[in-house]
Amino acid sequence: MQKGQMLYEGKAKKIFRTDDENIYWVVYKDDATAFNGAKKGQVANKGLLNNKISSLFFKMLKKEGIDNHFIENISENEQLIKKVEIINVEVVVRNVATGSLVKRLGFTEGEELSEPIVEFYYKNDALNDPFINEDHIKILKLADPGQVQQMREQGLRVNTVLKRFMEQLGIILVDFKLEFGVDSEGKVLLADEISPDTCRFWDIKTQEKLDKDRFRQDLGGVEEAYQEILKRLEAKI
Amino acid sequence: MQKGQMLYEGKAKKIFRTDDENIYWVVYKDDATAFNGAKKGQVANKGLLNNKISSLFFKMLKKEGIDNHFIENISENEQLIKKVEIINVEVVVRNVATGSLVKRLGFTEGEELSEPIVEFYYKNDALNDPFINEDHIKILKLADPGQVQQMREQGLRVNTVLKRFMEQLGIILVDFKLEFGVDSEGKVLLADEISPDTCRFWDIKTQEKLDKDRFRQDLGGVEEAYQEILKRLEAKI
Ligand SMILES: Nc1ncnc2c1ncn2[C@@H]1O[C@H](COP(=O)(O)OP(=O)(O)O)[C@@H](O)[C@H]1O
Ligand SMILES: Nc1ncnc2c1ncn2[C@@H]1O[C@H](COP(=O)(O)OP(=O)(O)O)[C@@H](O)[C@H]1O
Ligand SMILES: [Mg+2]
Ligand SMILES: [Mg+2]
Repeated sequence: MQKGQMLYEGKAKKIFRTDDENIYWVVYKDDATAFNGAKKGQVANKGLLNNKISSLFFKMLKKEGIDNHFIENISENEQLIKKVEIINVEVVVRNVATGSLVKRLGFTEGEELSEPIVEFYYKNDALNDPFINEDHIKILKLADPGQVQQMREQGLRVNTVLKRFMEQLGIILVDFKLEFGVDSEGKVLLADEISPDTCRFWDIKTQEKLDKDRFRQDLGGVEEAYQEILKRLEAKI
Repeated sequence: MQKGQMLYEGKAKKIFRTDDENIYWVVYKDDATAFNGAKKGQVANKGLLNNKISSLFFKMLKKEGIDNHFIENISENEQLIKKVEIINVEVVVRNVATGSLVKRLGFTEGEELSEPIVEFYYKNDALNDPFINEDHIKILKLADPGQVQQMREQGLRVNTVLKRFMEQLGIILVDFKLEFGVDSEGKVLLADEISPDTCRFWDIKTQEKLDKDRFRQDLGGVEEAYQEILKRLEAKI
């Protein structure tokens, strides 16, 4: 496999073409950003850690019957993925109240939800990824109703599998963000990454945050938290 | 009918009990508020105007097959309504982009939408009536999924009827907010008011705003705009 032209440099990853037009080459970066890029920094080894963590999650999901874009790792901080046409909708699934549920909707921090909640956000940096509903998705032509239904269902399936899996590692899956795309056959396929950058993980015993909130909230020990997630994952798999 | 104890004084109306436990007595006030009460004022004759306008709309909707809480007018600024258990969800229907569609989602001011959009807001003054989705409605136990479906369908029906009706008065129905409640038989019933306080009305020819945006944006001529709506309604009905 040949690495080709860089197509896109995002906040956390660089995407390159390959000699196969259906395959992209991803380089995970050490750059850390929060609040839609307003806060910037670096986390040592983040590229390597998220590349490994995300790969392990995607492999596990595949085994559990949830297809996704992951193909294979090619170096410590690089992986090959199936090219998709990204749907500009971020799918958030929540099990425990924090963040906007507390600030906007009056939930109690840490409150367990009686069932998972799905939320859609418009993936649009210029607008700050605003919260939207299915009517907005339709009128903005971000996805058709069938695709929305599939993102919702796949989001809930990922949640069921990932929540149970993390529990075995002593970790609460508080909430997470997924991205989907449309593959060469027109199928809605799980894409992007699943990592401490895109999930909230709390230690079951200590309630310690093991995710990007350590960076957002200047709690320190960001790299150590990501290392801890990888360590528990590698011990289990 | 006997006016009983005052149950609730809201931003725009006072609600009283009557000697019939299923009927409430509403007094429409001249108070004007905007931005969830942050801006306060008075508009001469607003109580009288909105009482009349809302009554005419509810009668028209009833005739068109859309049941609602309106019973009868009892004075220039008072009406009798069927008591309902208000559902704490505000249902917004939009035909033309303005307000949050422009500010949050990047639509062009005045852009006609290819189809109507429905949005739900959590009716909660302390939280500033935040935008929510159907999962939030369920988990907050504001309404069950069947009730949500009914609010959505009734909202779209009101839109179809009201939009066509206003066009005949030379007015564009830009968007509006509805409230629903559950009546004594458990039915989801259209309630509250429909008036220039709760709708955006633009003159078709001049694009002039004939609604509460005149108050919100200090455009002047608030009373005159509401009078104009009533005049056109009375000429038609
Ligand atoms: N399988 C895929 N095919 C095409 N694009 C993808 C795929 N998976 C992820 N992407 C996109 O690649 C970019 C990843 O880079 P990232 O640094 O996360 O970007 P961003 O700053 O937009 O979040 C994102 O825009 C993401 O949507
Ligand atoms: N048919 C009804 N039965 C019971 N309550 C109603 C009915 N119609 C409207 N209401 C409620 O009465 C109050 C009307 O007063 P208003 O001044 O609009 O209040 P608010 O400041 O809450 O908007 C609102 O809380 C509204 O939900
Ligand atoms: Mg990203
Ligand atoms: Mg009101």
